[in-house]
Amino acid sequence: RVDGPRLWDALMELAQIGATEKGGVKRLALTDLDRQGRDLVVGWAKAAGMTVTVDQIGNVFMRRAGTNDALPPVMTGSHIDTQPTGGKFDGNYGVLAGLEVVRTLNDHGIRTEAPIEVAFWTNEEGSRFVPVMMGSGVFCGAFTLEHAYAAKDVDGRTVGEELERIGYKGTQVPGDHPIGAYFETHIEQGPVLEDADKVIGVVPAVMGLSWYDCTVSGMEAHAGPTPMHLRRDAMQVAARIIPEVVAIANRYPPYGRGTVGMMQVFPNSRNVIPGQVKFSIDLRNVNDELLNTMHEEMTAFVAQVAADSGLDVKLERVSYYPPCPFHPDVVGAVRSATAKLGYSTMDVVSGAGHDAIYAARLAPSGMIFVPCKDGISHNEIEDAQPAHLEAGCNVLLHAMLERARV
Amino acid sequence: RVDGPRLWDALMELAQIGATEKGGVKRLALTDLDRQGRDLVVGWAKAAGMTVTVDQIGNVFMRRAGTNDALPPVMTGSHIDTQPTGGKFDGNYGVLAGLEVVRTLNDHGIRTEAPIEVAFWTNEEGSRFVPVMMGSGVFCGAFTLEHAYAAKDVDGRTVGEELERIGYKGTQVPGDHPIGAYFETHIEQGPVLEDADKVIGVVPAVMGLSWYDCTVSGMEAHAGPTPMHLRRDAMQVAARIIPEVVAIANRYPPYGRGTVGMMQVFPNSRNVIPGQVKFSIDLRNVNDELLNTMHEEMTAFVAQVAADSGLDVKLERVSYYPPCPFHPDVVGAVRSATAKLGYSTMDVVSGAGHDAIYAARLAPSGMIFVPCKDGISHNEIEDAQPAHLEAGCNVLLHAMLERARV
Ligand SMILES: NC(=O)NCCC(=O)O
Ligand SMILES: NC(=O)NCCC(=O)O
Repeated sequence: RVDGPRLWDALMELAQIGATEKGGVKRLALTDLDRQGRDLVVGWAKAAGMTVTVDQIGNVFMRRAGTNDALPPVMTGSHIDTQPTGGKFDGNYGVLAGLEVVRTLNDHGIRTEAPIEVAFWTNEEGSRFVPVMMGSGVFCGAFTLEHAYAAKDVDGRTVGEELERIGYKGTQVPGDHPIGAYFETHIEQGPVLEDADKVIGVVPAVMGLSWYDCTVSGMEAHAGPTPMHLRRDAMQVAARIIPEVVAIANRYPPYGRGTVGMMQVFPNSRNVIPGQVKFSIDLRNVNDELLNTMHEEMTAFVAQVAADSGLDVKLERVSYYPPCPFHPDVVGAVRSATAKLGYSTMDVVSGAGHDAIYAARLAPSGMIFVPCKDGISHNEIEDAQPAHLEAGCNVLLHAMLERARV
Repeated sequence: RVDGPRLWDALMELAQIGATEKGGVKRLALTDLDRQGRDLVVGWAKAAGMTVTVDQIGNVFMRRAGTNDALPPVMTGSHIDTQPTGGKFDGNYGVLAGLEVVRTLNDHGIRTEAPIEVAFWTNEEGSRFVPVMMGSGVFCGAFTLEHAYAAKDVDGRTVGEELERIGYKGTQVPGDHPIGAYFETHIEQGPVLEDADKVIGVVPAVMGLSWYDCTVSGMEAHAGPTPMHLRRDAMQVAARIIPEVVAIANRYPPYGRGTVGMMQVFPNSRNVIPGQVKFSIDLRNVNDELLNTMHEEMTAFVAQVAADSGLDVKLERVSYYPPCPFHPDVVGAVRSATAKLGYSTMDVVSGAGHDAIYAARLAPSGMIFVPCKDGISHNEIEDAQPAHLEAGCNVLLHAMLERARV
């Protein structure tokens, strides 16, 4: 069994770096704070006897040797970058749970046949630089190193420059690194486990995601003198599309999701009819056929609204990844470790994207969820219970041991 | 008849102060540019033999003596402050048309019995400081001088300080200034005259206006893991209210107006269900009873949506003025001057608020509209034809002469 208080202390110590007044963490990817966080974790790994390699996109692999180092490592990991209004657990938990597994093995003098590795992937959050899940995405070839290097923050600084500046542009070619199996522990980021009062979520799959920018262009005009029938009101046309995003999601339960999270209005003045409204659409489902149907219905609906209204409506897909079913062997390892340890459990499909979906393109992969308070994350009030975090870490330990063999 | 090219030249010269690259004007109230604009116009007035007084809110009155100075002046005016993306004509035309009337009377050596005054009112636009139509509002007692002085811009500078700084805090008590009749020439700011191919709009009334802030508060949560039935999505609730704003306006034609021009989404992130959405509602009608009915329907609808959705929805009225019918004598003077001069004409209800609605609380008032290109204003591409501006000024000259008596 792992040392729960030690895991908690590590989480709290890492959360000091970039701590916010409201009890959250702001440690954006490739900032000085990210460097400090990386240095702290790497220092802990070295103190635990691990060897550390860094690849060209800044992914860090911390390795505990096995008795047969020709075997591909059994890996776990996540990320330590945070949202601007992030919490202490999102990502950080997955990395420090891996470290705690290694510390526990050291305490008990347990040698595994396959090496154990703990990874942290660069820029999972995608807040400072897009795309999200950048490090694992480059690692598995979802997009190129050059594409990632060229990504700019709002001040025009690139990923390439910033990696160099903080000293984490490694030499290893991303992906040139075998993986035997990949596990990732994470807070659920949703309310399902808490609602059902379960401690461990076994994650059979991650939903696929389809992101869009929708832009409605009309004509700005004065809100008073312009008769209703002469208006080309972009806000009103947007308001016809927004409810359909939810309606489409509701037509494909239980895993259909539809969200309009972001909107910009031009010129955004109280007495000017909006000339342009831009908003985001986020559609998800765990079944790729259904996600495609949702995509087609969205596209058709927007075309219909454009035709009916006579306004110009553009729907541009800006991101897509398909649903990712995890490997039955890895999911099975999580399930049997949970059963052996006697934790209450249920299956929880992940609605959020994780580095594990990219790792899954290269090796059998799976995830372990623990509850978070009120299902809230990407928020400074994100919270989780020490006992749950310890439980997830125990499941990780036993599942990894099953794969790595003692 | 007035000198059209001279009027045009004055408009173009004043438009140099704060000229923007796209051919518009940015001359916000009580800035250094506003001072330069004020100084230019005051200089022209003095050169035309007028005397100038300034009141405590910075309203400027430029007076041409009558043969009987005991009579209250026949006044015209408007404003010279602009929107951030303003044009050359909105407001400026009304002030310089007044100046052109005086110059024409001087050219022909015409003396009027009542004095003629040309006013420009402080901060009509309300872009830098709210409320809108501040100078005329204080003048007629719609709100107090103290309230206006305390208004702050985004940098925290107050109207009181800024009036002092630019040297336009006068000594005259606002409103302590008799008016015999008030005329205001203005571009229509709507498409009605242009659509009907008429030169002069006789304005029987200005629509009343009711402004609201509507705030929907739900709970922000991650767009992926949060099941549809557990969401408290503020955007979706807002999207149910937005179409009703237009539906209400359409139920009270032909002068019902309904606009949602402004929206803010929190936290405004693609993969976060909005926890709060704030938007503006602008309702107008020329009939106060109908405007009140619209207000009641809006209030009831919002309450119903709040009850149905279970979310907190606040509807706060932030501005209101009732419809303002203009005085039959002044409207009649405009109508007969237009007929005498032979211009094509129609009645146009003003959908936009103007200083004239506040002047109307103190004296018989009315307005003269001329077409503007595509009905566009509050936009750098605002445009108007020299011949139309000249026609409106001729109507102003003759209507004022009828009231001031030669
Ligand atoms: N875990 C997480 O929040 N990933 C970001 C991408 C998403 O919206 O699912
Ligand atoms: N003329 C004008 O645009 N006034 C501002 C107030 C309004 O929206 O009507």
